[in-house]
Amino acid sequence: MEKLIYEGKSKSIYSGNTPNTLRVHYKNTLTAFDGKKTASKQGKGALNAETSHLIYDYLSNHGIKTHLVEKIDEVNFIVKECQVIPIEIIARNIAAGSFSKKYGIPEGIPLKNVSLEFSLKSDELGDPMINSSQILAIGTATEEELKFMEKTTLKINELLIDLFKKAKITLVDFKLEFGRHNGEIILCDEISGDSCRLWDIETGKKLDKDVFRRDLGDVLKGYAEVLERLKKII
Amino acid sequence: MEKLIYEGKSKSIYSGNTPNTLRVHYKNTLTAFDGKKTASKQGKGALNAETSHLIYDYLSNHGIKTHLVEKIDEVNFIVKECQVIPIEIIARNIAAGSFSKKYGIPEGIPLKNVSLEFSLKSDELGDPMINSSQILAIGTATEEELKFMEKTTLKINELLIDLFKKAKITLVDFKLEFGRHNGEIILCDEISGDSCRLWDIETGKKLDKDVFRRDLGDVLKGYAEVLERLKKII
Repeated sequence: MEKLIYEGKSKSIYSGNTPNTLRVHYKNTLTAFDGKKTASKQGKGALNAETSHLIYDYLSNHGIKTHLVEKIDEVNFIVKECQVIPIEIIARNIAAGSFSKKYGIPEGIPLKNVSLEFSLKSDELGDPMINSSQILAIGTATEEELKFMEKTTLKINELLIDLFKKAKITLVDFKLEFGRHNGEIILCDEISGDSCRLWDIETGKKLDKDVFRRDLGDVLKGYAEVLERLKKII
Repeated sequence: MEKLIYEGKSKSIYSGNTPNTLRVHYKNTLTAFDGKKTASKQGKGALNAETSHLIYDYLSNHGIKTHLVEKIDEVNFIVKECQVIPIEIIARNIAAGSFSKKYGIPEGIPLKNVSLEFSLKSDELGDPMINSSQILAIGTATEEELKFMEKTTLKINELLIDLFKKAKITLVDFKLEFGRHNGEIILCDEISGDSCRLWDIETGKKLDKDVFRRDLGDVLKGYAEVLERLKKII
């Protein structure tokens, strides 16, 4: 018997059908500003699921270990069960969003190096930013795990920059999550317009969740555009 | 002719009397919560100046380069002119204050390792926390400078833990600032009850600015107690 084990903002996770795996169901919900803004858009779950699946396959083919096992249907995937490390890692190539606001760097300014930042995943605490020495101080992850996550994120950044460039898209920033599985750290969660900032390489037009956050039009048009372009090149 | 070049919350800085040096005047002002809470206490400037002077001498005798040149009187010191790096570095041995609140770790819990965190000094932006990769990304300091600041802060932490232990005081956390001077990074600003959390080693009684922040009694009594104990052992 399947059992709902996690109800997230944009995904539900079920356990029980086969041992050591979970079913991830992509929902149509869009949320922003810590859940203060929400909407439901028909087809959003399927767009994100397909985009994330394509990107995970690409990363997997380039040596990145991920939780993905197989597709069931357009909104359901089987993934390896892992112990999620309660840390989000954000990589930024160009200043935007909260980074621009927090540090007074105008959106669109290229950064002098890749900025990597961690947040502690905690709805209660509001996902506060945390640095590696603080993570070690409170014992959320080990030094080895953090170093692996940083190194892997930088590798994924290079791979995604290349991929999106071929699709005529600029990768501004993105968020990753990792989990522990059989003594290894593997990539989990999704990579999609929900978790990346993606700008058209020519026009700078936003093709990601900022369209929803800032009420700039039909957010799914951008998501579909990204998916179409990726399908042509992968 | 002397000229006021910086009016801070607890210090004023003047230039002009001799080349490449500045006069620091310790004020009686106490502030907390980004200046939202303020008070003036007769004798506070002199207590902090003497405490900081003692500690700087001690650090200097243990190989730490500081901006301190000489004492003029009980609230005025001559320091080397340096280009202040607009980054505060906070070292924590025990969870307290904003760290406890932000990460949900009760005050008083010893940390598994020393937590080092940076803030970008900017009244406009509210001194946001920033990590080393973000500092490099926006170019506020170089990697070499950050590494030196981190290494020096850890060394100062060891030296101060030793010093305060002899005075039967627990060093909970403290804040440092550094500046560029003749191609070197030197310690600047003050080290006192304003910039450290100091607890009596036996009773846990607070001897620092938290007494003012949290209305726990006469803040200067704690400052004077710390100074008296240090004078007996240095």
